[in-house]
Amino acid sequence: MAAATDAESETTAETLSASVVGASGFTGGELLRLLVAHPNFEVAQATSREYENKTVGSVHPNLRGADLRFSDPGDLESVDALFAATPHGVSMQHIESFREAADTVVDLSADFRLDSEAEYDEWYDGHVCPEYLDEAVYALPELFREELAGADLVAAGGCNATATLLGLYPLFDAGVLDGDERIVVDVKVGSSEGGAGASKAGSHAERSGVVRPYAPTGHRHEAEIEAILGTGVSFTAHAVDMVRGASATSHVFPDSPVSKGDLWRAYRGAYEDEPFVRLVAGGGGVYRYPEPKAVAGTNNAEVGFELDPGNERVVVFSAIDNLMKGSAGQAVHAANVALGFEETAGLEFQGLHPVGAP
Amino acid sequence: MAAATDAESETTAETLSASVVGASGFTGGELLRLLVAHPNFEVAQATSREYENKTVGSVHPNLRGADLRFSDPGDLESVDALFAATPHGVSMQHIESFREAADTVVDLSADFRLDSEAEYDEWYDGHVCPEYLDEAVYALPELFREELAGADLVAAGGCNATATLLGLYPLFDAGVLDGDERIVVDVKVGSSEGGAGASKAGSHAERSGVVRPYAPTGHRHEAEIEAILGTGVSFTAHAVDMVRGASATSHVFPDSPVSKGDLWRAYRGAYEDEPFVRLVAGGGGVYRYPEPKAVAGTNNAEVGFELDPGNERVVVFSAIDNLMKGSAGQAVHAANVALGFEETAGLEFQGLHPVGAP
Amino acid sequence: MAAATDAESETTAETLSASVVGASGFTGGELLRLLVAHPNFEVAQATSREYENKTVGSVHPNLRGADLRFSDPGDLESVDALFAATPHGVSMQHIESFREAADTVVDLSADFRLDSEAEYDEWYDGHVCPEYLDEAVYALPELFREELAGADLVAAGGCNATATLLGLYPLFDAGVLDGDERIVVDVKVGSSEGGAGASKAGSHAERSGVVRPYAPTGHRHEAEIEAILGTGVSFTAHAVDMVRGASATSHVFPDSPVSKGDLWRAYRGAYEDEPFVRLVAGGGGVYRYPEPKAVAGTNNAEVGFELDPGNERVVVFSAIDNLMKGSAGQAVHAANVALGFEETAGLEFQGLHPVGAP
Amino acid sequence: MAAATDAESETTAETLSASVVGASGFTGGELLRLLVAHPNFEVAQATSREYENKTVGSVHPNLRGADLRFSDPGDLESVDALFAATPHGVSMQHIESFREAADTVVDLSADFRLDSEAEYDEWYDGHVCPEYLDEAVYALPELFREELAGADLVAAGGCNATATLLGLYPLFDAGVLDGDERIVVDVKVGSSEGGAGASKAGSHAERSGVVRPYAPTGHRHEAEIEAILGTGVSFTAHAVDMVRGASATSHVFPDSPVSKGDLWRAYRGAYEDEPFVRLVAGGGGVYRYPEPKAVAGTNNAEVGFELDPGNERVVVFSAIDNLMKGSAGQAVHAANVALGFEETAGLEFQGLHPVGAP
Repeated sequence: MAAATDAESETTAETLSASVVGASGFTGGELLRLLVAHPNFEVAQATSREYENKTVGSVHPNLRGADLRFSDPGDLESVDALFAATPHGVSMQHIESFREAADTVVDLSADFRLDSEAEYDEWYDGHVCPEYLDEAVYALPELFREELAGADLVAAGGCNATATLLGLYPLFDAGVLDGDERIVVDVKVGSSEGGAGASKAGSHAERSGVVRPYAPTGHRHEAEIEAILGTGVSFTAHAVDMVRGASATSHVFPDSPVSKGDLWRAYRGAYEDEPFVRLVAGGGGVYRYPEPKAVAGTNNAEVGFELDPGNERVVVFSAIDNLMKGSAGQAVHAANVALGFEETAGLEFQGLHPVGAP
Repeated sequence: MAAATDAESETTAETLSASVVGASGFTGGELLRLLVAHPNFEVAQATSREYENKTVGSVHPNLRGADLRFSDPGDLESVDALFAATPHGVSMQHIESFREAADTVVDLSADFRLDSEAEYDEWYDGHVCPEYLDEAVYALPELFREELAGADLVAAGGCNATATLLGLYPLFDAGVLDGDERIVVDVKVGSSEGGAGASKAGSHAERSGVVRPYAPTGHRHEAEIEAILGTGVSFTAHAVDMVRGASATSHVFPDSPVSKGDLWRAYRGAYEDEPFVRLVAGGGGVYRYPEPKAVAGTNNAEVGFELDPGNERVVVFSAIDNLMKGSAGQAVHAANVALGFEETAGLEFQGLHPVGAP
Repeated sequence: MAAATDAESETTAETLSASVVGASGFTGGELLRLLVAHPNFEVAQATSREYENKTVGSVHPNLRGADLRFSDPGDLESVDALFAATPHGVSMQHIESFREAADTVVDLSADFRLDSEAEYDEWYDGHVCPEYLDEAVYALPELFREELAGADLVAAGGCNATATLLGLYPLFDAGVLDGDERIVVDVKVGSSEGGAGASKAGSHAERSGVVRPYAPTGHRHEAEIEAILGTGVSFTAHAVDMVRGASATSHVFPDSPVSKGDLWRAYRGAYEDEPFVRLVAGGGGVYRYPEPKAVAGTNNAEVGFELDPGNERVVVFSAIDNLMKGSAGQAVHAANVALGFEETAGLEFQGLHPVGAP
Repeated sequence: MAAATDAESETTAETLSASVVGASGFTGGELLRLLVAHPNFEVAQATSREYENKTVGSVHPNLRGADLRFSDPGDLESVDALFAATPHGVSMQHIESFREAADTVVDLSADFRLDSEAEYDEWYDGHVCPEYLDEAVYALPELFREELAGADLVAAGGCNATATLLGLYPLFDAGVLDGDERIVVDVKVGSSEGGAGASKAGSHAERSGVVRPYAPTGHRHEAEIEAILGTGVSFTAHAVDMVRGASATSHVFPDSPVSKGDLWRAYRGAYEDEPFVRLVAGGGGVYRYPEPKAVAGTNNAEVGFELDPGNERVVVFSAIDNLMKGSAGQAVHAANVALGFEETAGLEFQGLHPVGAP
């Protein structure tokens, strides 16, 4: 992984035009929030069929100060960069028009995260433009910084996959794991992962206070994890009572004994120059391990671990804001890399303390 | 396991006197709530050094209607049954006086859950009356109904251990697991598990909305689980945003392939006659798997599972109210068995829907 | 107001059949919960068009143990008592068939709460059977115990109206207020008040953590309050982050100075014999004034007050569970009175401590 | 009120040194968060007796990236501006040393909010340096912009007072109210208002899900409100389930009839040039009135109203983040004005959507 500081030396400072397609949803709104305040982007269009001509602030109250109205997704202007926050399966149907409208396309759906039609068909249903799968670059700069530089098509990762990958990747990179081991990933996520729609299960009365197994097995984010790590994981996701946040606890059993020193070396080696990854493992105080609320609203990821000698187990904790590092923030970070901007541009917010259940 | 219905045929209907020692804490208050409404118990004393002479309703607002004041724990009256909700390490110091005061003692601390001094010393610090360890019966009737009948000293299990044991025991009992397999147990618990005291980490501002790893490794409830299952588990506990509830997700990897039918047979065999265990696995609607909020306030446990063929994994979910099935409710259930009462006496409340974050 | 103890002396102990129409909603489910455990009722039917033939436990997880399936609301059996939990405007369309099916009908909608067509038309749209308005008795036994005895048609009050009335009625009854004073009622309610449906505003992500003015002025419950108190109130309702609960803070300015003693006399005079009203005003500890979570799941109401000499103001606090004392519990209480049962039958649950955001 | 834009024309762009005294508490941490990212400030010291030499990130996890350690409050360096986040009654004891250390002192306690010793003694206990009371300027630029320019001693307002004043001031300024009317202010606040300490009442288990009257009458913030508006208000505060946020609902009864147009004129006149006040009154969508969660983490205030013709009442809603506009953000805003910086410097964050219970 190239150090962030290298990339920074070549940053440019121009201002480019950007559009957000599907801007009334949660990730679309988050993209708007980031782009409106981004020093190198000017927002040209925010599309929404449902809310056409309404102000973006009428849907996203934090954007009440923005002088911007939703426009028809059928009338895309030419821009430098287009961010697509359209649902899974919809992005692929419009990818041609997206690319016609913009030189750089960043898609936040699952449509372009996998590398081949075969992989896609194993986890999803029939891809309509598989020819783009190989071209699209996965948007995590911590893993694909070099490939992202100058990329035309970028696929932001799934939030649960992102949390998992950031926790496990260093162990593979450092050889602590080689892919033959059992890996159990137990994820806890907030309600914003379900999107902005209305449902009985997602109503406040039914969804409050839950520890609800919502994807006991077969979660599609496994596909990305396996594709990138080269090995399967035993993945289970639970809905818990927060709005933003994804927390992955990965239980791994290395074949050979490892020490805390080995683990620190692996994680420091991977992340010490990364602007958005913090290692949090032990220490005093209230916040001793990664916690989603410590990164809420930010593009930061917290990663930490504990060693369980009695069970020859390493427990890895990773926490992100699912709408930020797990989606819109990751997308903007990747766009910054792709377009040669400062990596942290538009992503400087460091979060709040105290904060309840963001 | 003897069926509940057998036990019921011999129930008695007398009224016995009962005291609660340590009645101002959360489990003490829960015991009071259950005993005050119990058809076979009359509450003689509720002790609290801190709140002596105050009404129990001044601490537990749900008991405002009860005509009962806290008394000095140093002045124990003779009663038929004594429930001790004293902290870990304190119960053992007073066990002689408890037994002098009552023929039947049910202790809710960790002091008498293990069978031998050696086991105790491995997980805790020096026991002052190890001679009682062997005599004490673990309070889960689903596992120890026969031993509980007529028992003089009963030790209510730990809440996380209870949730885990109820999920895993049937797989051992049915031979799906034999103890050589890796078992990962990932637990999520509410804030009442921390007790009624004040702490910075437990303040509303810091504790709200968390997914906080509070026992990454080495949780003491592992001791009970290992003692009863005969094998170690890889256990990690997280604090999440609810007050009541413990949810255990156990990831197990049987050596031989199992079918859904095998799993149903194992769980039905274990629990079909149990009055307090519900099997919840799949189906439609909002509540498809065990959830703590579906059992909040009740002595019910929900147990369910899913099969992950791709990873040769069984995921077991179990959910309880940590103060009820995980402590005070389990204690009263065990006392009902020990004293020959109807098993469900005083434990009939079936919970609420909808309910937020109880 | 006749004392509860008088009424109790004439209670009967027979078992009657009862049906719940509209049983899949939140108040319908709450009625089922109460009736299934009620010593004098046997549930004959629970109707739901949407969930016909499904178990009631598939919608209400706390009723998983009940052997009962939803039936077609078009096929009503003859029963002794029928509880209608149908939406506003729907009950009135079926009132004839309800009364044909049962001698005693308790309606939980707003359709029969007001006394005349004129009043109804002022706050709602066109009544289809105004001839029943005068006959129907408002379901609060604290105010209408004598009228409820033997009543054939009972109208359970609105939850916000109930909380307000229980707080203010004693001041009118004792002559502290005479109806010429300004009365400001500021209400805070939980999300279950919105019912079991799905909506964007009611999704967990949008509804969590709110203090949302949802009825700044013109709330229809004002109609009931004015009709019963004989004077208008300035009413505003806010949605806050709980599922169950309604809390009314009434700010009143008596024309003549009042003392704390006057207030205690007024409230004790009204409620000292009431089985479901607790006076909570000051004292020590955490719970010094009425709080919805102290009564969650119960039919209890807490009422309290504080005197503000500097502003010649009395602040009255009242707290209920909106689904219980504010709807289904009130309905069952009224049915107990109407049918001559023990007033507290089926309503003995005293709530939980601690409890989160029920 | 001078328009913000006027003030902006004279802004300077230098960098000044600043210290935070009492930096381990919630408002102290919020000040640090703002100052660390402020373009015109460089943080010299963050004091804390309890955490001396520890990193600020060990207490405030959002500041883990800051290279800053707590220092001894007894060793104050000379700086340009000192922000005191010390408790009420403590600031006054150290005011001499604060002023010795810095030319500009901004105090966040209640010690310097009132204008005279007589006022102070009416609501608090004995002031030790009353000579500064008259000099100190109340920190709300919307009301005191001219007085703040060049001020040496600034007193940040109380959060509840701030919310109330922002809602009511325009009605006095425009002559809709003249001070003889009854004004009821019903406030709902989050748990961060209680500060960073530990208490039983503030524990997660007891504090979750509450609607708890915590200051039924006699709240000390009334003093500020009365001093500034020139008239008393009937004030009651409730704790509700959020961490950040204060929402004031003011019920007022103008002597003469007012129209919606009158109200819009009053509020637009007061706030149309204000950078941190948004008028939100009606309209469509989910967020139709001011809500604390729509401004969480920001220095924005939302103000709105509704007219209740039937009761001749105006209901005014105002919502802020108590730690921001209600404390630290207000302090930085005032410092920006006092020191001639851009008013919005360091306060640009616009908040999140969706967001749970921040």
